[in-house]
Amino acid sequence: MTIPQYADIEDAARRIASMIHRTPVLTSSYFNDETGAELFFKCENFQKVGAFKFRGASNAIAKLPDEQGSKGIVTHSSGNHAQAVALAARINGYKATIVMPENAPRVKVNAVRGYGAEVVFCEPTIEARSETAQRVVSELGATFIHPYNHPDVIAGQGTCALELLEEVPELDAILAPVGGGGLISGTAIAAKHLKPGIKVYGAEPELADDAYRSFHSGKIEPVLRTDTIADGLRTSLGELPFEIIQNHVDDIRTVSEQSIIRDMRAVWERMKIIIEPSCSVPLAVMRDQETDLTGKKVGIILTGGNVDLDNLPWQ
Amino acid sequence: MTIPQYADIEDAARRIASMIHRTPVLTSSYFNDETGAELFFKCENFQKVGAFKFRGASNAIAKLPDEQGSKGIVTHSSGNHAQAVALAARINGYKATIVMPENAPRVKVNAVRGYGAEVVFCEPTIEARSETAQRVVSELGATFIHPYNHPDVIAGQGTCALELLEEVPELDAILAPVGGGGLISGTAIAAKHLKPGIKVYGAEPELADDAYRSFHSGKIEPVLRTDTIADGLRTSLGELPFEIIQNHVDDIRTVSEQSIIRDMRAVWERMKIIIEPSCSVPLAVMRDQETDLTGKKVGIILTGGNVDLDNLPWQ
Repeated sequence: MTIPQYADIEDAARRIASMIHRTPVLTSSYFNDETGAELFFKCENFQKVGAFKFRGASNAIAKLPDEQGSKGIVTHSSGNHAQAVALAARINGYKATIVMPENAPRVKVNAVRGYGAEVVFCEPTIEARSETAQRVVSELGATFIHPYNHPDVIAGQGTCALELLEEVPELDAILAPVGGGGLISGTAIAAKHLKPGIKVYGAEPELADDAYRSFHSGKIEPVLRTDTIADGLRTSLGELPFEIIQNHVDDIRTVSEQSIIRDMRAVWERMKIIIEPSCSVPLAVMRDQETDLTGKKVGIILTGGNVDLDNLPWQ
Repeated sequence: MTIPQYADIEDAARRIASMIHRTPVLTSSYFNDETGAELFFKCENFQKVGAFKFRGASNAIAKLPDEQGSKGIVTHSSGNHAQAVALAARINGYKATIVMPENAPRVKVNAVRGYGAEVVFCEPTIEARSETAQRVVSELGATFIHPYNHPDVIAGQGTCALELLEEVPELDAILAPVGGGGLISGTAIAAKHLKPGIKVYGAEPELADDAYRSFHSGKIEPVLRTDTIADGLRTSLGELPFEIIQNHVDDIRTVSEQSIIRDMRAVWERMKIIIEPSCSVPLAVMRDQETDLTGKKVGIILTGGNVDLDNLPWQ
């Protein structure tokens, strides 16, 4: 795997332009006052399938030669990447098979099926997911699309920062959450190319601080627990994103579960938009921590809006 | 009281331009498919204080001569109008006194105080609210701003349809909920002037169908119960709005509580925005009822986004 370059992100932006939503950038005088900075929220919760993941999946799938795509697309995910692959495959006329743990919530299974993908269940272990996906790949000759350890996925995720900087070129910094690292690494490549002096910070839950520890130790550290409320950020950092993070990301900060829930709710109440818990992690960094961003213009990527309305974290 | 004309709405738009947010218009392919129409949602949930009410209050207050405004502003409300008056008064440098029932939720009392207004409590009856407000008016020489039975408030609410038609001039119809009638009457005056052939429909909960009954009987019929989940629509129709409705509104439709809750939740899930129950009443009309709007371009005013996140209607 090769590290994607800025040109790959520009290519991705052209490739997926007609498939994605160009999402709005919102501001909030309340959060400006609270943080002492000027914040610009890039609303990927309004993206197709309700998450930025659609950018990466649609780029990776649209880039496939037709004779390859027509043998099918495979991934394993119980989250937003599953829906992203399902929809991107359908748009391109390809068959998608999504491997999901047999205990995945029905609502997520149904959402994936709603986009026309086949769901194959496996035992709820990382090994079983991987083996089952591999079996489908072997049987069909299908193409596996990794959720973040994939150059075309990273390039696709980078289109989000590209749009944000087109709309707000005077940004001094961009903050994004870190799960597997696909978003932050695509963001860093795009932002540092367009504006070399810009700061790019990753934000993580304290309970899933593997990127923070990896960033400081210089090698990939495993996730130690998977119980953060920020369900999009429970995965371990990928190798390719980690290499990019080491070269292009300025810092990684962590915040508590209480702060994540507080700011998720605050965004709902103040901005009247639905965001997932993962989204409020960078905002919580801005509110809780000393940074060099006071008085600065700061972009925050709101990553998605898929939540279970029957099970909210403050209940 | 005289009926506001289109010119009053244009004046209002100029007067409040620097005070209000010009709110976005969103679309949803999901709801287009569900309704067989092309819907354009005017997002007043993103308006200041989280509701369209700020338009009317800010117009009425900004229009006051300074020697009158400086004697203070009074209203009685436990809803969005209270916050709207509080903020609009503060922006104009006037003192606001809001009469609220002593059992009003703390969160609403605090919100009003947060905008710098004084809260005067009264017994939770319509008579007590009215008498207490009248007493403050007499004592201070302050000006009472009625939430809907007021020409300047109606003209202010009409600016919402003005913006919507500027952005989507090809609309065939506009739907708005009906509570006291300020929004629908301002909407009708603006829309019918700008586009005489356009349809304007009001939408009401079956449980608070006083405007529906009044529209058909030709005289103001009282609200019979106040337990609809759409808390913004529990008030009785005002005399001035009713006169405008009789002349300019094409029809009023009613929907069930179940449909209101279903479509409030559907908007949260599909559009990732927070709307109050009142907002989904027009959408529920589009989904549940036979109308002449199939295949048409239909504007829907989403009136506000102030909800108690600890007490959601589907819980």
